[in-house]
Amino acid sequence: MNLKNYITDVPNFPKEGITFKDINPLLANPEATNKAVELLAKGLYGFDATKIVGIESRGFLLGILLAQKLKLGFVPIRKPGKLPGAIISQSYALEYGEDSIEIQENSIKPGDLVIVHDDVLATGGTAAAACKLVEKCGGTVVQCNFLMELNFLEGRSKISNYPLHSIVHY
Amino acid sequence: MNLKNYITDVPNFPKEGITFKDINPLLANPEATNKAVELLAKGLYGFDATKIVGIESRGFLLGILLAQKLKLGFVPIRKPGKLPGAIISQSYALEYGEDSIEIQENSIKPGDLVIVHDDVLATGGTAAAACKLVEKCGGTVVQCNFLMELNFLEGRSKISNYPLHSIVHY
Repeated sequence: MNLKNYITDVPNFPKEGITFKDINPLLANPEATNKAVELLAKGLYGFDATKIVGIESRGFLLGILLAQKLKLGFVPIRKPGKLPGAIISQSYALEYGEDSIEIQENSIKPGDLVIVHDDVLATGGTAAAACKLVEKCGGTVVQCNFLMELNFLEGRSKISNYPLHSIVHY
Repeated sequence: MNLKNYITDVPNFPKEGITFKDINPLLANPEATNKAVELLAKGLYGFDATKIVGIESRGFLLGILLAQKLKLGFVPIRKPGKLPGAIISQSYALEYGEDSIEIQENSIKPGDLVIVHDDVLATGGTAAAACKLVEKCGGTVVQCNFLMELNFLEGRSKISNYPLHSIVHY
């Protein structure tokens, strides 16, 4: 089974000149979804991870499946204002301006070994900010884990301090 | 295992006077998450569902776990502007003003028997809009499915045409 058969190109989305990789056909097929989770999990054995962090929104999907498969707790990283209680925030640069993401401060504890999961590694800005959030909580990032990697955007250069595992490359 | 032990009250979130039910402690505990999925799935056997729809963002979490458990395809309903390709939109009333949600128009086909899942049934506005989206695609909603139901908001009156299954009540 080639997972690329379940990821479609949508030209000019979200804006002119960008080709979006749509994973919804993969999610619509339970065998393809299961295959993706199996391949993502294969890269995780031996890391003794204690938690999986998923980045809102699409990182929630395979992130929680991976957490259940490995019997680990799942921790969401969300857009600003979405998480209740005491939170920690991290900003990151966009092409124009900046954005930020948040984590609950008691969700990761010192000693936690954390997998950071998202659906796609593009420029790496969000992933790098997510790793900083884990570290601000006292956790250690043991792997950055992605379904897709857009090699031409060289996102891995922004998270070169961490082991990286991605299973579909463009 | 009482799932309420893994759902915490956060007063005055997202605004003064509202008590938010935080499911992150449940997600952080793989046994509690698994238990929730098992109880949600128990209410689904016999419906011959063909797809599970999850509503962004928290409905993605148990929604995709449920889809994998039942070996069904998962379809995301998202906030405006997030889904690529041809989409169908549905607006719904908020306390002040209105909001809308979207689905990809080819994601549900005539003949599909669809479970609509979200983490919480509150006033029912989003759930009712999600059911309308499924029907606009030609699908039939066979159940609305929620982790939590806030009984005092009487959300079930807005989706009284559909079978309803929720496992934690407040």
